Amino acid sequence: MKERARHVSDPLRLGIAGLGTVGGGVVKILQRQAALLKLRTGRAIVISAVSARSRGKDRGVPLDTYGWEDDPTTLARRADVDVFVELMGGSAGPAKAATEAALEAGKDVVSANKALLALHGPALAEQAEDADAVLRFEAAVAGGIPVIKTLAEGLAGNGITRVMGVMNGTCNYILTRMEATGQNYDALFRECDRLGYLEADPTLDVGGIDAGHKLALLASIAFGTRVDFGTVTLQGIQSITLQDIHRAGDMGYRIKLLGVARMTDQGLEQRMTPCLVPAASPIGQLEGGTNMVVLEGDSVEQIVLRGPGAGAGPTASAVMADICDIARGVRLPAFGQPAATLRAAPPAPAPSPAPYYLRMSLRDKPGALAKVATVLGANGISIDRMRQYGHASQDAPVLIVTHGTARPLLDAALAALPATGVVKGEPVALRIEDA
Amino acid sequence: MKERARHVSDPLRLGIAGLGTVGGGVVKILQRQAALLKLRTGRAIVISAVSARSRGKDRGVPLDTYGWEDDPTTLARRADVDVFVELMGGSAGPAKAATEAALEAGKDVVSANKALLALHGPALAEQAEDADAVLRFEAAVAGGIPVIKTLAEGLAGNGITRVMGVMNGTCNYILTRMEATGQNYDALFRECDRLGYLEADPTLDVGGIDAGHKLALLASIAFGTRVDFGTVTLQGIQSITLQDIHRAGDMGYRIKLLGVARMTDQGLEQRMTPCLVPAASPIGQLEGGTNMVVLEGDSVEQIVLRGPGAGAGPTASAVMADICDIARGVRLPAFGQPAATLRAAPPAPAPSPAPYYLRMSLRDKPGALAKVATVLGANGISIDRMRQYGHASQDAPVLIVTHGTARPLLDAALAALPATGVVKGEPVALRIEDA
Repeated sequence: MKERARHVSDPLRLGIAGLGTVGGGVVKILQRQAALLKLRTGRAIVISAVSARSRGKDRGVPLDTYGWEDDPTTLARRADVDVFVELMGGSAGPAKAATEAALEAGKDVVSANKALLALHGPALAEQAEDADAVLRFEAAVAGGIPVIKTLAEGLAGNGITRVMGVMNGTCNYILTRMEATGQNYDALFRECDRLGYLEADPTLDVGGIDAGHKLALLASIAFGTRVDFGTVTLQGIQSITLQDIHRAGDMGYRIKLLGVARMTDQGLEQRMTPCLVPAASPIGQLEGGTNMVVLEGDSVEQIVLRGPGAGAGPTASAVMADICDIARGVRLPAFGQPAATLRAAPPAPAPSPAPYYLRMSLRDKPGALAKVATVLGANGISIDRMRQYGHASQDAPVLIVTHGTARPLLDAALAALPATGVVKGEPVALRIEDA
Repeated sequence: MKERARHVSDPLRLGIAGLGTVGGGVVKILQRQAALLKLRTGRAIVISAVSARSRGKDRGVPLDTYGWEDDPTTLARRADVDVFVELMGGSAGPAKAATEAALEAGKDVVSANKALLALHGPALAEQAEDADAVLRFEAAVAGGIPVIKTLAEGLAGNGITRVMGVMNGTCNYILTRMEATGQNYDALFRECDRLGYLEADPTLDVGGIDAGHKLALLASIAFGTRVDFGTVTLQGIQSITLQDIHRAGDMGYRIKLLGVARMTDQGLEQRMTPCLVPAASPIGQLEGGTNMVVLEGDSVEQIVLRGPGAGAGPTASAVMADICDIARGVRLPAFGQPAATLRAAPPAPAPSPAPYYLRMSLRDKPGALAKVATVLGANGISIDRMRQYGHASQDAPVLIVTHGTARPLLDAALAALPATGVVKGEPVALRIEDA
């Protein structure tokens, strides 16, 4: 007999795997807000047992009344667990095995694991539906912001036209601190390292991978497609200079690591790349480690959500939203519609046309600028603004803003530039997104 | 037999009362997105019948395949209606009668009627629960922003500490246009009248009543209290001058018609009043007719939601969110917890202490400023900043920013000022909210 067939006034019994920052936060909420949670969901929410790497570690919360399992898979299968709460992380290994074991046993699963869901979401959603179990992962995207609920439920009447988001707080912290303090990328990267803001593999943050996982999950829900992280265009913030930030500012823009997903006639477009956005737009105004997601629909126009993208309290708040839904008997498909109906959308061969910001260094030769302009023109790229800055050395920094340009044309022009002999190093091209 | 006991794959059958802006928007979505809605909710959502004041009027959508009722109460009771969608408006009369009739007949109700809910919400919620029916009203608060869902579901794990909102687009339009164009309140009021931005009784907008209804609804959900619109402190924007806006700007603030609800040891605090907020805060940055709601919880810290507060598409989007939830089998209590458990919270006798902005005109007499300062000091009010502006006439405009002050002390000081004989007219006092 399925656990959830028990009467709804029975306690909802959790098995929590992973007692790090988020797991500890969830335990604290369950202890502190037990009465409130019962009032709101109509039933007690209790922890049957927990699992973590080290049993002895002091986590600042009393755990001695809960059962203990060394193996999360054993926890996932316990008869006294209705909901398996996966807060270990990792796209493979024990997190995947335990999640699959839980679903196989017909348990509901609440997960904060963006990598696991971004890489294996459709299969897990199918497994959940076959077992008549629920799989939820609000905490996997944008921390405390209930963005999945907003998209899949609050905007369920909309054809979604675009999803945008700043969803890696570390990158936004680095970019806004570069602007505020005049420190360069390397200095801020080291500061983030000291402050513990970086993942063990920092490329997950600054390379846009972590944020790309989140974007792929939102795109799936927005457009009814099978999560396809492999086709997300990824570009990190490592090549962004102070000069880029200041020159973009001069022109009324700010630079953000921006995720954009939209469905076009050409296919699904998913990008997580540094973009210029209008400084006065909500995304342009976003400071520090805060996350922001912009949801656009054919009826609602535009909804903007802003909140903490990480941290024990906010992330645990998102985990609790899923747990409360399950306690209240809400049973929705993981990606907003039955897994079998999610389409394998073809990736768009190129992003939709947009203006681009180009930064390059020219050798101080007569006619250098004209040669660059000629290459751009020959490739069908029209120049909106061009600025050449004064320079002390032999290299002249040049900034160009193009009119709306198809990316393949831009790529052809960039490929043709070295042959002019006047461009030094690699030009930087950043999309200007109408945010 | 209750309608909803029908199999979940059966169509969900709506009766829509009111075919104005919002009603027309809902019909359009149901016609345009029928396939998508079925995919997302697992069942067809169909209109059985509609009702409106005038049958002949052209509403730009084909209605001939739907049944028609002249009387919304008859519509509410129709056997082929599962969900009664109330989009007529008005806190009494046909809207109230039809809503009660629908609940009495065990129908689910989706309403966009903020006045009805703010004045009769607890009784209607009790009636719904007695009938095992669902009552939802996402569209009643902040238009297209799914704020009720975010608060009651997305933040269900949080003890809510404060709810703030700019929830009347017309007022925010007037205030931001005054600043941008230098036109005064009266000129902008007339512009809004011309543009059709005002309710039939404009006091509902500029007097803060409409926004006060919305705040009272959010406060109920946030704090588990019975909606109590009668104890919302209301102050409109009619007394705000261009000078206030510019001087507030000089000091780094903007003026917003701001709703604030919080639960204190003294009781429930609910205010919808013009406040100064930091210009760089999300609320301070809000332009034009857009709405914004800030939700603060003990775990999530702060979530900010921004979106269109009115209009056919956005409001219909919110109505559709409720309808989709019902189609998906989501059955939650109207105010986030069972109606019988909502507390009748005592209203706080005074708002929590805060700094205040004071503007007054002094007669050009020696010692006038000293007399004002003496009255403030005698009432225990400490002055943070004071500015006297150059003046061509006999009256000297004076602006004072106080340190944190209990409102009763401020009221005592304001009452004592006329006796000084140096203050001309009524001083204006605006709270500075830490937004």
